[in-house]
Amino acid sequence: MTWQRFQKYYYNNASLGLSLDISRIPFPDDFFANMEPAAQRAIAAMAELERGAIANPDENRMVGHYWLRNAALAPTAELRDAITGTLASIKDFAAKIHSGEIKGSTGKKFTDLLVVGIGGSALGPQLVQHALGQPRRDKMDIHFFDNTDPDGIDYVLDTLRRRLDRTLVIVISKSGGTVETRNGQLEAAAAFRAAKLDYAKHFIAITGAGSKLDQTATAEAWLARFPMWDWVGGRTSELSAVGLLPAALQGIDIDAMLAGAAAMDEVTRRADTARNPAALLALMWHYATDGRGAKDMVILPYKDRLLLFSRYLQQLVMESLGKELDLAGAVVNQGIAVYGNKGSTDQHAYVQQLREGVNNFFITFIEVLKDRPAKTAIEVEPGITTGDYLQGFYLGTRAALTEKDRHSITITVADISPRTLGMLIALYERAVGLYANLVNINAYHQPGVEAGKKAATAVIALKQKLMAALRAPDAKPATAEQLAAQVGGDPELAFKILEHLAANKAVKKKANINPFKSKYRL
Amino acid sequence: MTWQRFQKYYYNNASLGLSLDISRIPFPDDFFANMEPAAQRAIAAMAELERGAIANPDENRMVGHYWLRNAALAPTAELRDAITGTLASIKDFAAKIHSGEIKGSTGKKFTDLLVVGIGGSALGPQLVQHALGQPRRDKMDIHFFDNTDPDGIDYVLDTLRRRLDRTLVIVISKSGGTVETRNGQLEAAAAFRAAKLDYAKHFIAITGAGSKLDQTATAEAWLARFPMWDWVGGRTSELSAVGLLPAALQGIDIDAMLAGAAAMDEVTRRADTARNPAALLALMWHYATDGRGAKDMVILPYKDRLLLFSRYLQQLVMESLGKELDLAGAVVNQGIAVYGNKGSTDQHAYVQQLREGVNNFFITFIEVLKDRPAKTAIEVEPGITTGDYLQGFYLGTRAALTEKDRHSITITVADISPRTLGMLIALYERAVGLYANLVNINAYHQPGVEAGKKAATAVIALKQKLMAALRAPDAKPATAEQLAAQVGGDPELAFKILEHLAANKAVKKKANINPFKSKYRL
Repeated sequence: MTWQRFQKYYYNNASLGLSLDISRIPFPDDFFANMEPAAQRAIAAMAELERGAIANPDENRMVGHYWLRNAALAPTAELRDAITGTLASIKDFAAKIHSGEIKGSTGKKFTDLLVVGIGGSALGPQLVQHALGQPRRDKMDIHFFDNTDPDGIDYVLDTLRRRLDRTLVIVISKSGGTVETRNGQLEAAAAFRAAKLDYAKHFIAITGAGSKLDQTATAEAWLARFPMWDWVGGRTSELSAVGLLPAALQGIDIDAMLAGAAAMDEVTRRADTARNPAALLALMWHYATDGRGAKDMVILPYKDRLLLFSRYLQQLVMESLGKELDLAGAVVNQGIAVYGNKGSTDQHAYVQQLREGVNNFFITFIEVLKDRPAKTAIEVEPGITTGDYLQGFYLGTRAALTEKDRHSITITVADISPRTLGMLIALYERAVGLYANLVNINAYHQPGVEAGKKAATAVIALKQKLMAALRAPDAKPATAEQLAAQVGGDPELAFKILEHLAANKAVKKKANINPFKSKYRL
Repeated sequence: MTWQRFQKYYYNNASLGLSLDISRIPFPDDFFANMEPAAQRAIAAMAELERGAIANPDENRMVGHYWLRNAALAPTAELRDAITGTLASIKDFAAKIHSGEIKGSTGKKFTDLLVVGIGGSALGPQLVQHALGQPRRDKMDIHFFDNTDPDGIDYVLDTLRRRLDRTLVIVISKSGGTVETRNGQLEAAAAFRAAKLDYAKHFIAITGAGSKLDQTATAEAWLARFPMWDWVGGRTSELSAVGLLPAALQGIDIDAMLAGAAAMDEVTRRADTARNPAALLALMWHYATDGRGAKDMVILPYKDRLLLFSRYLQQLVMESLGKELDLAGAVVNQGIAVYGNKGSTDQHAYVQQLREGVNNFFITFIEVLKDRPAKTAIEVEPGITTGDYLQGFYLGTRAALTEKDRHSITITVADISPRTLGMLIALYERAVGLYANLVNINAYHQPGVEAGKKAATAVIALKQKLMAALRAPDAKPATAEQLAAQVGGDPELAFKILEHLAANKAVKKKANINPFKSKYRL
């Protein structure tokens, strides 16, 4: 923690406008030397991946998100053309929307954009919208359906109620089979129909060629379709059409985002570990968490616009690294838990625990040097601005944590701009890939997600059976347990389903003081 | 996990419309019997606190947030009058704003509300605004300054730029000395001045009597002042003026919020552990985390409107429980880390890690039975609604986690309403108080927060010294290390401050390829 250690381990890249301070992770002097063989293997594996190796062996897929910002890297001419062609068509489409060449079904210019997507199809656009946009000044205002909550859908539709005729809807699902997104699409279409609008003239699909969504969009002659490729994972799709189309429509400079990511890719491709910020990050994660997720990663950007960055990283890091098995098939239960909001706000929330409580985390501070775009700053004390205080609280909190042996990393960037955001996304994508190699796991699949979906499908099927039983001509009021026995279902699930149906007046309930003796009927 | 265990441990309170399922925390059958003496001590300690005992010994303060929803409990007539009088004046004030009896400085009716506060003075109002409001339908639209980020302030001001003459500003700081809030107040005042508006006629203070903020508001004859008492902590202030005034202005039924909290207080006051949902929660936390924060608490409400609940609980739980010392002065480093957003969205983010990765958490699912207020639901499949799927994903995710021995609690509520939100806040306030007693810590202070503030003040002082050195008539371009030596400051801090100043053009930098050899001048 001395000035010497700070200088010794300070990574600074003036052309990127980015630096990385790892001095407050107390690794010993021989740490890098000991890790170097593993780091070199990881860097080599990432090079293989970039060349088109099957880096996702379970799913027998290539992993090509790095090609999105440098199509020349893609292993075939076909892929290169797909990337550059899609980028051109995104820009062309956005220009036509902005100019009014493409209008809504009643001839009005599009002003609002509703993105229907979840997980990797929402978190990136949400991050970018908040980090780089300004409501009412952007070329289009963006709204999201990112769940299958009917009340949440109503909430968003209410804000759009007088503007539906000027609203463009992008439905994003790689597989085309994500139920939440399908539901959002159907709810949106119903709202358009209720407003007597021809929704097909407002809807766009971003999906894999030939997917169910692609088929629907084709059959219903939607306004446009953009591709999503099987070599781009949801959590690394922000720089594909998934992220670029909403950003371009919002009026954000997507070329600058791509250029920032490409510049970061170049630097994080380096074999010289000490000059590769992604390798440095991955090695720090390894040291801080003992290579087994022993500590949580707290992300604390001192910039309101980066509020959603921790949520974005939560997905990128946890879905990539949270794995039961390593590549050799051994049970490892890997992962690093990620949380955080923003500084200095969080100083007034949970930093009390970080300083004094259970020491089960390391922090990554993100410092943004530029305070505000243009306007002259007011002084809140003689010679002192709000921005000086923002930095003061970052440095003060960091010092208070260091004093209590709580460890931190700092990433410093010049500003929040499309280029910088592209850089940060690329930095973390590469760090996650390298870290996965260090601990020998597949970062590019998500085998644990299927079980929940299957179980949900079983719940829906049980609801159908229960309703059928209640509709039977000889049906009598019955308890959850009786109905479950009748249809061969789990009684606890039946109870939960019937309580939900009763609350929504889809079934009638005769309540008993013992809730398990309550009876249900139609 | 059997139907029998589910029924045995199911807490159901029909009059509250709340149930609690602890069956998926695998405590053994003798757990409650073993914990009962400790639970009884905790319940007794909470009763003492409610009677006005000094429950915050370090600060020699009473802890009275329970009195806010039942003034009859307050230990003196003076306190009772203060509570009921303030509530009456909040309702009276809100009515006058809504009717237009009180107008802005240019005679326009107030339409927008800017809340300036941080931590406990922002998280509660933010939670309530999102959970219970509807933009453009609420009586007033609420905006927040919850940080000292100048760009974040500009972002909010930009949305208010055409409505400043119709904007009411509430500055909230109990001590009146929170710098972020003071900065926000000054930035807001500057914006009003720039718009040639008499800001004092738009500003309201919520603060302790006689505080610096109170003095300013008095001296400048602000529109109104509301009290904040030393026996209400920031993180338990939502049902004081801090939360009630913004909610009342937004048009939310604050009597229902208070009634919900009062009803929950009654139930969670019970000495019968098995019939006290807060005691059950606290005991589950104790079992799940080994009474020492060994696992993180993941909060997963299946309701978009509860997105901010995890952030609210992050403060309530972590600031209350994250303590270095217990009441006997032993070093314990207590706490429970809290994170989460909402289901089923998070299923597409980090549930992969929860099911397969490091098993360092337990989940609290929050289930809301009522799907949507009025509107007829559309069917997304024959007989199936989006709300059925929302429940299906909750039950499916829960099953998938249980299968892998990941533990969960479920809280089920009937709806999201002012009454239910008041209940949930009161439930967690009590659970935190009980848990603190179980592990013998003071839940009501935050001694770890001061260090960061002091260190930040030192950073501001160092900036002043550096600027003075650069302004000296004989000043020559110098490195950070040279300037630090000159003013007797830490070279790393000096470097960070100078880089920040250079990025904001407050100093000039002659960059060197070695950043520590860069020189700075005015």
